[in-house]
Amino acid sequence: MATRDVVIIGGGFGGLEAAKSLDGVDARVTLVDRENHHLFQPLLYQVATASLAPGSIAMPIRSVLARQKNASVILGEVVGADLDARRVTLRDGTELRYDWLIVACGAQTSYFGHDEWAAHAPGLKDLRDAIRIRERVLLCFEAAERARDEAERKRLLTFVVVGGGPTGVEMAGAISELGRQVLAGDFRNIAPTDVRVMLVELADRVLTPFEPDLSAAAARQLRELDVELRFGTRITHVERGAVLLEDSRGSERIETEVVVWGAGVEPASLARALDVPHDRRGRVRVDASCAVLGRPEVFAIGDVAGFIPEGSEEALPGVAPVALQQGRFVAEQIRRDLRRLPRKTFRYRDKGIMATIGRSRAVVQGSVKLTGLLAWLAWCFVHVLYLIGFRNRFIVMFNWFWSYVTFKRGARLITARPGTDGHPTPMPPTPPTPRASEDPAAPPA
Amino acid sequence: MATRDVVIIGGGFGGLEAAKSLDGVDARVTLVDRENHHLFQPLLYQVATASLAPGSIAMPIRSVLARQKNASVILGEVVGADLDARRVTLRDGTELRYDWLIVACGAQTSYFGHDEWAAHAPGLKDLRDAIRIRERVLLCFEAAERARDEAERKRLLTFVVVGGGPTGVEMAGAISELGRQVLAGDFRNIAPTDVRVMLVELADRVLTPFEPDLSAAAARQLRELDVELRFGTRITHVERGAVLLEDSRGSERIETEVVVWGAGVEPASLARALDVPHDRRGRVRVDASCAVLGRPEVFAIGDVAGFIPEGSEEALPGVAPVALQQGRFVAEQIRRDLRRLPRKTFRYRDKGIMATIGRSRAVVQGSVKLTGLLAWLAWCFVHVLYLIGFRNRFIVMFNWFWSYVTFKRGARLITARPGTDGHPTPMPPTPPTPRASEDPAAPPA
Repeated sequence: MATRDVVIIGGGFGGLEAAKSLDGVDARVTLVDRENHHLFQPLLYQVATASLAPGSIAMPIRSVLARQKNASVILGEVVGADLDARRVTLRDGTELRYDWLIVACGAQTSYFGHDEWAAHAPGLKDLRDAIRIRERVLLCFEAAERARDEAERKRLLTFVVVGGGPTGVEMAGAISELGRQVLAGDFRNIAPTDVRVMLVELADRVLTPFEPDLSAAAARQLRELDVELRFGTRITHVERGAVLLEDSRGSERIETEVVVWGAGVEPASLARALDVPHDRRGRVRVDASCAVLGRPEVFAIGDVAGFIPEGSEEALPGVAPVALQQGRFVAEQIRRDLRRLPRKTFRYRDKGIMATIGRSRAVVQGSVKLTGLLAWLAWCFVHVLYLIGFRNRFIVMFNWFWSYVTFKRGARLITARPGTDGHPTPMPPTPPTPRASEDPAAPPA
Repeated sequence: MATRDVVIIGGGFGGLEAAKSLDGVDARVTLVDRENHHLFQPLLYQVATASLAPGSIAMPIRSVLARQKNASVILGEVVGADLDARRVTLRDGTELRYDWLIVACGAQTSYFGHDEWAAHAPGLKDLRDAIRIRERVLLCFEAAERARDEAERKRLLTFVVVGGGPTGVEMAGAISELGRQVLAGDFRNIAPTDVRVMLVELADRVLTPFEPDLSAAAARQLRELDVELRFGTRITHVERGAVLLEDSRGSERIETEVVVWGAGVEPASLARALDVPHDRRGRVRVDASCAVLGRPEVFAIGDVAGFIPEGSEEALPGVAPVALQQGRFVAEQIRRDLRRLPRKTFRYRDKGIMATIGRSRAVVQGSVKLTGLLAWLAWCFVHVLYLIGFRNRFIVMFNWFWSYVTFKRGARLITARPGTDGHPTPMPPTPPTPRASEDPAAPPA
């Protein structure tokens, strides 16, 4: 009979991996998440650009842990924690006691103090974000098809992606492909060259974690997709229908209905609200065993944690492999605690980084460096490999194959009623303009 | 140069088929729909019960007609028509002139004068309905897992389907399978026998359009799935959390969070608002050529039309084959009008009817009668055959095969934030109940 409790906050890469790695341990494992599903975030941009259905990259957390006898799952939101009393509180008032707590609640979009931009420039962190962006993009094409004013049409077909990290690069490439190669052909009044996609980055290159030659390769591949790159440029204002850019030459106003914010993330509010030491960027400071300083029974892993490897000055980046390895590692430390063995030091095995730009376009930096088709195939392979569930893997592979061959997209769905779901609708009223037949209608038959 | 205009209201089975059948005709064809997609409604219940992703049964109308040079598509809502001036008005004020109008805007859920029930008992007509029902069902299981009160748990696991037509039969069977065979296994505190599904029907049998022996077979198959059948029973009241049933023995209050309304449909409001003769049930009365009485240039087809075949007293039923055949037929009549040939008489070729109850369970009534596995295979074959698009066909077949073998469901997704999307959330607050460890927590390590 298990007598100890492990509570895990978050069912992302870190939290779910920790839960799975605790299989068979003599402790009750309770995983709490606000969503009913684990989300494979690296493919979220493909939902936002109508390549994949939301269900293909999501898996009910409950299903993943169904056969693990010591695990249970709660759909709920942790709103606070009393670390001295060792318990967390859910929004509905439920309190959960723990002997070990694993804080793995991930990151949220950061607007660097401009939260008012969120309504006009959604980030890309969950399926709601992705569906919202997908609908905005598709609705812009619908409205542009009918726009009679040239400036209006131009505005509706201008898409601005903020931030040249992996999310920004992937979104910019995918929106350009969607607009120019897929959608333009289905519309009567839109030519591929009407579609304008801008990628705005403050630094002088995209993908700064990569080496400069790979950044250059990514930039070249983006330009092949007709993405307009604006380096050394910052966003100074976002409002409904426009953004203000500023670079060394001055400022420029870009009229657009769709701004995607990929410029930054910060640890989830919950992690920042915890009464523990944080680093400058709001991440929870942890020791060599991933435990919170002064709280050996509380672990922080993944995007919420600021883990500084021995001999380094910088914390590990907020990427899936770090979260996965830390999830496995802290599960092992709990096993060691139970056997009264000393804890180990976490060591990150960096297998490299990769980003995709579009069909047959990607960059990989690991034991080898790759660009173009080979990099893209490696990217596809790794992403399918890490996706959970045979069915999802199969469906995603089939969708990729189908899109590759046909240049079509399988998830071009607008399900929100325009104007009723709280997001601004880009469907402007057009003036009444009777389409007169050239000769007066004769009664048929 | 085309000089005549055909306007089609609605991209369902009838409207889309009419548009496709007008390919090559010397006329501009404009199809207007409120949605960007054609929906394969016969499989909508599988989206509502987490078997299929919304995108698998929807196809952008624009893609279907992309290569048809004389066709264009407008995402918009027709709000009125001036039949004398031969033009229709969209919600945004746009006016479209026509030489021929095809009214094919389908049916909507009817509450027989009790529209206030709609909020608590959604029908199943579009993807929003289906996604809403799916989320309610899944959230009920989540809440039941944590309910501490037995009555509360019972209420959360009680599902009421109103109406014993094909929609009701399919929903009742699918909810029972989902709850008992799929979900129960993933939850710690829910046994298959806790799940209660009721099907309420005013008549004394399900599937009244079928012959009595097939109705009996369907009822037997529903009972095998533990669906509780309540014949001769009417709904007298629906409110948040409960329905009131009434039969010859008296009335009964059933506590439930999920009521699915499959009891009736009526022609879409637009069709009923048109200044044309209607029949008793609000359908547009049409002549032998499917044209509105006194308006040879206006056709009404599918669910909005009350077409009475020669020698019959009853109008054709609101099923997909009628709409498809009428769509093809009216396109042919427009071709004949253009060549100044007389119109023909529409004759419905009835190939039979079918309904499915669940895995390996169905009934078919055509040139032969089938029940059970054979009927189910026939049902699968016909539904995949009529689904538009190779990709959708393949994905649907794969999903069915996968669910058949694994007893899993691929689309168990909750994307709405509970309580924020306007529908009542079945997640009741549970009282704070600390899960005390059996021995006081010892600090680890």
